[in-house]
Amino acid sequence: MDKNGNFRFLKAIRGEPVDCTPVWFMRQAGRYMKVYRDLKEKHTFLELCKTPELACEVTLQPLDVLGLDAAIIFADILLPLEPMGTGLEFTAGDGPSIPRPVRTRKDVEALKPVNAEEQLGYVGEAMQMVRGEISGKMPLIGFSAAPFTLASYMVEGGKSKDFTTTKRMMYEEPEMWALLMTKVADVLVDYLKMQVKAGAQALQVFDSWVGCLNPGDYQTYILPHTRRVFDGLKDAGVPVINFSTGTSTMLPLVRQAGGDVMSFDWRIDLDDAWRQIGHQTPVQGNLDPNLLFASLPVIRERVHDVMRRAAGRPGHIFNLGHGILQHTPVDHVKAVVDMVHEYQHE
Amino acid sequence: MDKNGNFRFLKAIRGEPVDCTPVWFMRQAGRYMKVYRDLKEKHTFLELCKTPELACEVTLQPLDVLGLDAAIIFADILLPLEPMGTGLEFTAGDGPSIPRPVRTRKDVEALKPVNAEEQLGYVGEAMQMVRGEISGKMPLIGFSAAPFTLASYMVEGGKSKDFTTTKRMMYEEPEMWALLMTKVADVLVDYLKMQVKAGAQALQVFDSWVGCLNPGDYQTYILPHTRRVFDGLKDAGVPVINFSTGTSTMLPLVRQAGGDVMSFDWRIDLDDAWRQIGHQTPVQGNLDPNLLFASLPVIRERVHDVMRRAAGRPGHIFNLGHGILQHTPVDHVKAVVDMVHEYQHE
Repeated sequence: MDKNGNFRFLKAIRGEPVDCTPVWFMRQAGRYMKVYRDLKEKHTFLELCKTPELACEVTLQPLDVLGLDAAIIFADILLPLEPMGTGLEFTAGDGPSIPRPVRTRKDVEALKPVNAEEQLGYVGEAMQMVRGEISGKMPLIGFSAAPFTLASYMVEGGKSKDFTTTKRMMYEEPEMWALLMTKVADVLVDYLKMQVKAGAQALQVFDSWVGCLNPGDYQTYILPHTRRVFDGLKDAGVPVINFSTGTSTMLPLVRQAGGDVMSFDWRIDLDDAWRQIGHQTPVQGNLDPNLLFASLPVIRERVHDVMRRAAGRPGHIFNLGHGILQHTPVDHVKAVVDMVHEYQHE
Repeated sequence: MDKNGNFRFLKAIRGEPVDCTPVWFMRQAGRYMKVYRDLKEKHTFLELCKTPELACEVTLQPLDVLGLDAAIIFADILLPLEPMGTGLEFTAGDGPSIPRPVRTRKDVEALKPVNAEEQLGYVGEAMQMVRGEISGKMPLIGFSAAPFTLASYMVEGGKSKDFTTTKRMMYEEPEMWALLMTKVADVLVDYLKMQVKAGAQALQVFDSWVGCLNPGDYQTYILPHTRRVFDGLKDAGVPVINFSTGTSTMLPLVRQAGGDVMSFDWRIDLDDAWRQIGHQTPVQGNLDPNLLFASLPVIRERVHDVMRRAAGRPGHIFNLGHGILQHTPVDHVKAVVDMVHEYQHE
């Protein structure tokens, strides 16, 4: 364990005592910050992701301003789609679009294996640069999508409300679905291992949309493949956070997929969620990102509510239930960091 | 109790024995049926809603074809917005748009009281016509939105992903929010009572989007107003269904709001959900609408799974967890009705 192992964030993950609760945010670098918007005027989103100097710059933007306990590399969960062969475009306002969606067995079979080091090496380069800047100050988190979330974009061809095309493939063509999920899982393991090699001291696997499923579907069609990712990272030497939203009715199942830390959204109270998965597992998340638009007294009340429910147990990392929303006031984000750090457990 | 009280659907709500489990669907009349699409080519959506003859025709379209156990009036949850003064438009493909959204205290105060009989009388007229056609064959369900779902459209000005503007009002201006919710609740009670007068033999209150909140928010900002609607209907003389989605982590709270039947989405297993709210309360819902795109053997397996979890208890109504999706194969919908009717509890 190098000296970096002493960071609050990593100590909390190991269940060790901390001087105060560590806090970081998903999308802590992004559109709610003016410095980001200024940079975004000069570059496309994909340029920011693919130019290591720029991705590094964006990653660093919020760190000192907010007093965060961890950095997370600036990247997009969809980046692996390009080397897999589906294409990837971002249109202003409309979000991601996948020009060659995966709908048939032929499409699944045509997906290319990825050499992350070569084809997604720009993410690794950005991570090395970030490590050079923050080493000794805070740890760096790497990330990817989970198989379902990535596969759903591939099948739908972009964002989806009902995930009808994805579910249809899952229900009607279970073998084809399993092949797709296996291929995706293998790419993700390789990609995340590359990130560890590049300096990631923790990883987060985002299953942002898996909450559209019922518990039985999760167990049958998703869990084996998500587990393949977590199993594949067991020898990676860094802790892995299992993130999902909308899964409050199947937390023990999601827990079974693996990971060292469980992340919760706001649809369940933290104490209830933590009890369900067992207090030996560290947890993060829980505050509704919309809460950051409220007045500071309301925010304080709700941050304190989460802290009370965490009850000072070892293994608590403060976070939102999902990413920071556009237009969130920066001073409110900063205030949350301070509230968490200053909170005294009774 | 008139002879109509002997319908399977109403008997199940009263917890009486039934010859087989009753089944109906949300959006059982709609775009997935060719007869509806043909009619829609000649009329706008609002014309269909506001012309009693057409709304009646659409309501009747699926009944005999599918062998359903209840009719639900063809209407839209947003119709009360017009007499309240916010305006209401539907654009092809993009869904509803509210030209004068409610954002300030002045906006809330300017909302007009509604005389449902006069201003939404076309819904009542359509219901009378439907009753004339189906009386003695099956009961008719009336419906409205719940206060949160209607208010969220009013505040956002249309569909929303994150409900940021709504939540912001709720958190930052709790008194203004309470005033808005109270005004909406009173309009809804009046509107639903008018529907009963026009022939509704049961009512459903749709809180389609309330699952975006956490349990504490629901309790503080929503429950008192939803309860105001259910309390206001206590002397209406017909059973009321409390429908919501995404609320599986707060079912006992949602139960507290009121209603005679609880509706569940697919994010929780039926037996788990029913146990949580108590078996004395009748239940409906639960199947993922996307399941209807699967092959018939897969559909059968999942329909039977729901039926097994209902365990033949009195008070079970089969339904989906939300409305039928566009492009759903009509013969699959029909097959589900038959599977439910033919199911034999062991």
